[in-house]
Amino acid sequence: MISQAGLRQPGYGQPFALPGHRVLLGSERPLQLDSGAELAAFPIAWQSYGTLNSDRSNTVLICHALTGDQFVAEEHPVTGKPGWWSTIVGPGKLIDTNRWHVLCVNVLGGCMGSAGPSEINPRTGEPWGLAFPIVTIADMVRAQAMLLDHLGIDRLFAVIGGSMGGMQALEWASLYPERVFAAVPIATAAHHSAQNIAFHEVGRQAVMADPEWHEGEYWRHGKKPVAGLAVARMAAHITYLSEMKLHEKFGRKLQDRENIKYGFDAEFQVESYLRYQGQSFVERFDANSYLFITRAMDYFDMAARHGGVLANAFRDTPVRFCVISFTSDWLYPTVESRRIVHALNAVAANVSFAEIVSNNGHDAFLLDEPDFHRVLAGFLAGAAQHRGLLPLRNGSTPPSP
Amino acid sequence: MISQAGLRQPGYGQPFALPGHRVLLGSERPLQLDSGAELAAFPIAWQSYGTLNSDRSNTVLICHALTGDQFVAEEHPVTGKPGWWSTIVGPGKLIDTNRWHVLCVNVLGGCMGSAGPSEINPRTGEPWGLAFPIVTIADMVRAQAMLLDHLGIDRLFAVIGGSMGGMQALEWASLYPERVFAAVPIATAAHHSAQNIAFHEVGRQAVMADPEWHEGEYWRHGKKPVAGLAVARMAAHITYLSEMKLHEKFGRKLQDRENIKYGFDAEFQVESYLRYQGQSFVERFDANSYLFITRAMDYFDMAARHGGVLANAFRDTPVRFCVISFTSDWLYPTVESRRIVHALNAVAANVSFAEIVSNNGHDAFLLDEPDFHRVLAGFLAGAAQHRGLLPLRNGSTPPSP
Repeated sequence: MISQAGLRQPGYGQPFALPGHRVLLGSERPLQLDSGAELAAFPIAWQSYGTLNSDRSNTVLICHALTGDQFVAEEHPVTGKPGWWSTIVGPGKLIDTNRWHVLCVNVLGGCMGSAGPSEINPRTGEPWGLAFPIVTIADMVRAQAMLLDHLGIDRLFAVIGGSMGGMQALEWASLYPERVFAAVPIATAAHHSAQNIAFHEVGRQAVMADPEWHEGEYWRHGKKPVAGLAVARMAAHITYLSEMKLHEKFGRKLQDRENIKYGFDAEFQVESYLRYQGQSFVERFDANSYLFITRAMDYFDMAARHGGVLANAFRDTPVRFCVISFTSDWLYPTVESRRIVHALNAVAANVSFAEIVSNNGHDAFLLDEPDFHRVLAGFLAGAAQHRGLLPLRNGSTPPSP
Repeated sequence: MISQAGLRQPGYGQPFALPGHRVLLGSERPLQLDSGAELAAFPIAWQSYGTLNSDRSNTVLICHALTGDQFVAEEHPVTGKPGWWSTIVGPGKLIDTNRWHVLCVNVLGGCMGSAGPSEINPRTGEPWGLAFPIVTIADMVRAQAMLLDHLGIDRLFAVIGGSMGGMQALEWASLYPERVFAAVPIATAAHHSAQNIAFHEVGRQAVMADPEWHEGEYWRHGKKPVAGLAVARMAAHITYLSEMKLHEKFGRKLQDRENIKYGFDAEFQVESYLRYQGQSFVERFDANSYLFITRAMDYFDMAARHGGVLANAFRDTPVRFCVISFTSDWLYPTVESRRIVHALNAVAANVSFAEIVSNNGHDAFLLDEPDFHRVLAGFLAGAAQHRGLLPLRNGSTPPSP
């Protein structure tokens, strides 16, 4: 059984107690959402690493995935684990925080301090729950742009993200081409496929089938729909790994036993691994946020907003793109990245494309993948040169170009 | 929400009220299960079509899949829908019931009349629930062999099955080579992979997370864990279809609306299709049976029982095999069928292999697939000739060879 422990993350009336930054945006001019609703005076939480240079040109925006958050490169305040991209973000690392001013923003709809179903609805003084407006990937990006306005950053050097983070990178390039010098969408797609939607729908139904969900108002009952959310996470987690990786990692190996016991305990290692994934997820993530963010991804369809032609989303774009996919990613397979590249080629955009050979499935973008890292480093080095942001020799902030 | 309606299937103390046959087996000599437990005086339900010929040589055993049952070629007594293989089984059809005596047996652990968790435990007078012993694919086959003994059928002309039915066909050939003339394992594997186990574990956890499951004793509470079982079915159903088929069938088409509504209703057709699959499944299937049968499949590993060498399961086999896979089946992909074929080749077995080009995913074996049907018809015709069972000209039972 999944325990009801681990209610440490913020939200549902608890005061904000995370490290990092948070600001109320949209107090003067509300955010107009795709749904037609608007959000006024909403919180946005973010984390930053490194120092903004004097001409404010060295910001790298990293966009997080469905269940990620702003704690990219430091110990996670809830789980105590290393930041989700601390392999490549940090001082002297691939995305060198001695050189770049790295920002990561908790997405709209999230549960780590930005406006979402667990935050307080100012009109009622209660958590939003399902009354929170449906948001889209474009809405997430618009909120991030408002944050950049607040921070006085006109233009990003680069926007980088994997999975849902890659969708945001694409939307950034499409909505604000003049504010983005380079965009790196990784392991992503320009629309959610029927199979993507289907897996998300299973997850949502698992949450909603949990009687502790209480139509999204579980905070009133002192419990959370942890069992349903754990099932949702287990189903999703399978889609993040390749069949080959599961085979290599677990095969049919038994869990703490030499022979099968003939029962419903976790006999196989893959079972106890999945159960662990489910259990640890519910300790750090909010069930309603899971509904809202999966919904935002399902609605993602860049071509649809541009007359059915994806290329129209990028016409005359000045942005340099580096599109990256992984051979064993069956959630957002290479064919989806190729569609993006074809659309960019159709408008004569500056685009590099790399398909990385990997057995790690969709999760490859989070893991130690030397070929991926070489491609990303090479692209960023070239883009920095074109932007006139030369590498540092002494660790100081870069000079103005 | 999933309704609690549709409790029409037998089990949980209700008297057996299905059409077709049922018998108590193992009264004199109990069935020894792989787990070490034994089953005495247990019911087995089956359906038959066509007439057994005078020398009892024309029986085709069809083995059903996880959620199938014995109603292969007639209206289903619970759903009113056509039999699950009525496309190819019936008078004058590919598996011609004017010619063949077709048998299909509800598997051990099932919920359509054979011994399973919803049947009465004779020792307690109550339904078995989780006290039912864990069964394996081999146990299912052993029970079917006991039924053949009861029916006085020494040898099958053919054993045919898709998915879990194909696992049974393989076990039949391995356990009882002298009783099988020909075996046709379709869209199957000789072991369950880590990914297969992972998807099943998600389904089981979804059922067990439903508070109406009550540790498997839901019959005491007058309800069923329908919400959890529906989620399990939804997740499984995605694995039965190819990404391409989902795309062709649904894409991002909206359900009964022209524009998205921004909410958690079923916006996309694929969502309402999945919800319907979940809902209709719980009206005909027992949640505990789902646990037991998925577990049997997870335990399936023919090589493990033969010193890790699959070929040893078929050494000196006299059985003729026809192994069939489908290009877009990602649940039991062609590579799994090739492993079976390699093992059979290693022992110089008589084996044909066909990979059918299809977009229909795993479900292809249930659908109208002309190439598949041509291969199956051709193999059966050749096998019948070798067995001396000539085609009929006048619809009477075939002569003794």
